[in-house]
Amino acid sequence: MSNDRSATSDIPGPRPLAPGPRPLAPGPRPLAPGLSARHDHRYQQRGVSAGKAEVHAAIANQSAGLFPGAFCKLVADELTGSPDHALLLHADTAGSKAALAYLAWREGAPVSVFSGIAQDALVMNLDDCACVGSLGPYLVSNTIGRNAKQVPGEVISAIVAGYQAVCDQMAAEGIAIRMCGGETADVGDLVRTVDVGCTVAARMARSEVIDAARMAPGDVIVGFASTGQARWESSPNAGIGSNGLTSARHELLGGYRDRYPETWAPEIDPSLAYCGKHRLEEPLPGDPRFTIGSALLSPTRTYLPLIRDLLAAIPREDFHGLIHCSGGGQAKLVKFGRPGAARGNRYVKDALFPLPPLFAAIQASTGLPWAEVYSVYNCGHRLEAIVPANRVEACLAVAKACAIDAQVVGRVEENDGPGNVVELRTERGVYLYR
Amino acid sequence: MSNDRSATSDIPGPRPLAPGPRPLAPGPRPLAPGLSARHDHRYQQRGVSAGKAEVHAAIANQSAGLFPGAFCKLVADELTGSPDHALLLHADTAGSKAALAYLAWREGAPVSVFSGIAQDALVMNLDDCACVGSLGPYLVSNTIGRNAKQVPGEVISAIVAGYQAVCDQMAAEGIAIRMCGGETADVGDLVRTVDVGCTVAARMARSEVIDAARMAPGDVIVGFASTGQARWESSPNAGIGSNGLTSARHELLGGYRDRYPETWAPEIDPSLAYCGKHRLEEPLPGDPRFTIGSALLSPTRTYLPLIRDLLAAIPREDFHGLIHCSGGGQAKLVKFGRPGAARGNRYVKDALFPLPPLFAAIQASTGLPWAEVYSVYNCGHRLEAIVPANRVEACLAVAKACAIDAQVVGRVEENDGPGNVVELRTERGVYLYR
Repeated sequence: MSNDRSATSDIPGPRPLAPGPRPLAPGPRPLAPGLSARHDHRYQQRGVSAGKAEVHAAIANQSAGLFPGAFCKLVADELTGSPDHALLLHADTAGSKAALAYLAWREGAPVSVFSGIAQDALVMNLDDCACVGSLGPYLVSNTIGRNAKQVPGEVISAIVAGYQAVCDQMAAEGIAIRMCGGETADVGDLVRTVDVGCTVAARMARSEVIDAARMAPGDVIVGFASTGQARWESSPNAGIGSNGLTSARHELLGGYRDRYPETWAPEIDPSLAYCGKHRLEEPLPGDPRFTIGSALLSPTRTYLPLIRDLLAAIPREDFHGLIHCSGGGQAKLVKFGRPGAARGNRYVKDALFPLPPLFAAIQASTGLPWAEVYSVYNCGHRLEAIVPANRVEACLAVAKACAIDAQVVGRVEENDGPGNVVELRTERGVYLYR
Repeated sequence: MSNDRSATSDIPGPRPLAPGPRPLAPGPRPLAPGLSARHDHRYQQRGVSAGKAEVHAAIANQSAGLFPGAFCKLVADELTGSPDHALLLHADTAGSKAALAYLAWREGAPVSVFSGIAQDALVMNLDDCACVGSLGPYLVSNTIGRNAKQVPGEVISAIVAGYQAVCDQMAAEGIAIRMCGGETADVGDLVRTVDVGCTVAARMARSEVIDAARMAPGDVIVGFASTGQARWESSPNAGIGSNGLTSARHELLGGYRDRYPETWAPEIDPSLAYCGKHRLEEPLPGDPRFTIGSALLSPTRTYLPLIRDLLAAIPREDFHGLIHCSGGGQAKLVKFGRPGAARGNRYVKDALFPLPPLFAAIQASTGLPWAEVYSVYNCGHRLEAIVPANRVEACLAVAKACAIDAQVVGRVEENDGPGNVVELRTERGVYLYR
């Protein structure tokens, strides 16, 4: 059986159960790398464990897959039995960005705001998969968990339309993404508003896998902007992606706490709910093309066509790494490198993009130390390629053709011991992540 | 772009937004088949739309796949390009059964109660896939959305262990299920306690697909019990599966409303939350091997080894349908039949299994009309095979070897017009579902 709980008892009658509710005291958690005690406490107060130590402990015994150093897990192709192929089955959600879409919609934004949430969920998967060199075809199954008392059918329609719109947009770029249906569950006892997620399946030749374990000293790190308007986009993007939205929402926005209790956990200290000073409709400081709301809700850009073009222009073996700077932001690289090497990689980034206005606004509102801002938000580029120096020019040319800003943001050096280090040298200070 | 919402505005400055909150008045919904107005109102009051009319409207334009009459959606095998194969990518969750597990755990049940929830989520997928004739290998990606303020890491560990336990149990039966990782998100602003779901991928020869569109007059319906203890199980099952748990929980249980507000939607009328008279630890009326809690939390049985053995014993072409009586219960068949035929199928079931004690207790507590009980809960068998009469004996022999009770529960007749009808002739009355 799958668990220790017995569905039956040898002794008929009530099972002995503890007399009262279980105390909730898991004890202090270890701090996430790069997080000060004060701010990790603030994350925990909101129920966000930035370091995911608990999660990593829970899955510690799981296999890392065929390429343990690759950006995401690849498994043997048991669907066909081919020893030359690998499979990706990758799940993610839009996270608490869905709660923000709900808030904006209740405040008057069109229901199509939820189409962007579908894009968020899908792109968080697609761009992870593309970082191991998969270019599809992608098959997608999606799940929507909703509180039907707050979220009517038109929201479901907008989510479904959002998925299809990404498929159509990528089809125009020659990239195949197929929606295979999904599940919509009315679970108001579980979900406060609406939870939007999906799973992507893909298959690829093992010989074509980009294995980030090949990143080594001497390589150059090319960053690709998360802002601007890519060739396949119809409007500019503020760059946010789908990470850090719980903090950003509560620290930037104010005045919504009492009106929308369904958008925040009642277990948190109410003084931490929407404790910022901005309204959704205010202009974004530093970039009046956006409102605070439209900036925070910028749908996550997919870099898929860019990655496809990069892989067409440069031999695959020269991609030592493609990194999606999602959770972990500019410190994401620290998880990847040469496993088991006596000396790890030291990723030195000393030429980051100028900080986009949205991230400046988030820092100004949160008061987060910059070290934390850089390890939660992408802060300017959400994709980086780690390549030999002689491939930089080609990377920049491909990016230009995609209308995405790109630049060398750093390089790989040898660390002075085992393990990897990310060293950010910014105009605001130098920050280390181990 | 994926939506109508513009991330920018031509006119710098605040976007005009409606001045106040959006009224929530989606209007009356059409009734689900077989639901009376009074009880559908009660479902809606709890935010459960039994008929899923809204959901079906939202996805009405989506393709039905390669076999529109099959039990679940099959798509072209774009992963290999083989015209002879089809793919399944299938998502489901444990639904509100996870809230019940949380309640039991807080009341003193071991944390392994959550392992059963993983089994629920996985089996809801596997058994759907098996109903089109897929026997794996199955690849699984899972998602856990949790409120970290209520749900510590040990719960995640129990869920992960639960998935693995099903894999191990089925491996012993020669059925391959591989966990491919997943995503655990701390989203307390979205999820009250914990939401548990997964997605299953599988590939099969198109020639081996069981297409329920082949069910036709003259066929016999064999039911396979949801209760008892199958050969691969270590304890008896009360038969519940993963459907109807919102109603069952609130109508059977009492005394938990004020202590566990995190387990029910605050938008519902509080008088509908835990309005029953039972405690979790009370013996189940009619079957003291179970408590109310252990019966409701019986992990969903997988019929996979049974289906594998059926397909080994009987030619595939003689399986005109395999139906997983999940959402829709004994009325599930009404969705399947001969598409476009001038006369549909009339599924007459006049020899159902004796009602298991748990479903009797649910009816006694809810006061639901029996027509509704049969269309929400499986009421005795959660799998049925629709075969020619000369295959019945083999079905029963295979079931016996699996230690699963089986019997002929009905037959397929010709309807007197287009569309399908399910006619249940029970000792309590005759119920029709169209």
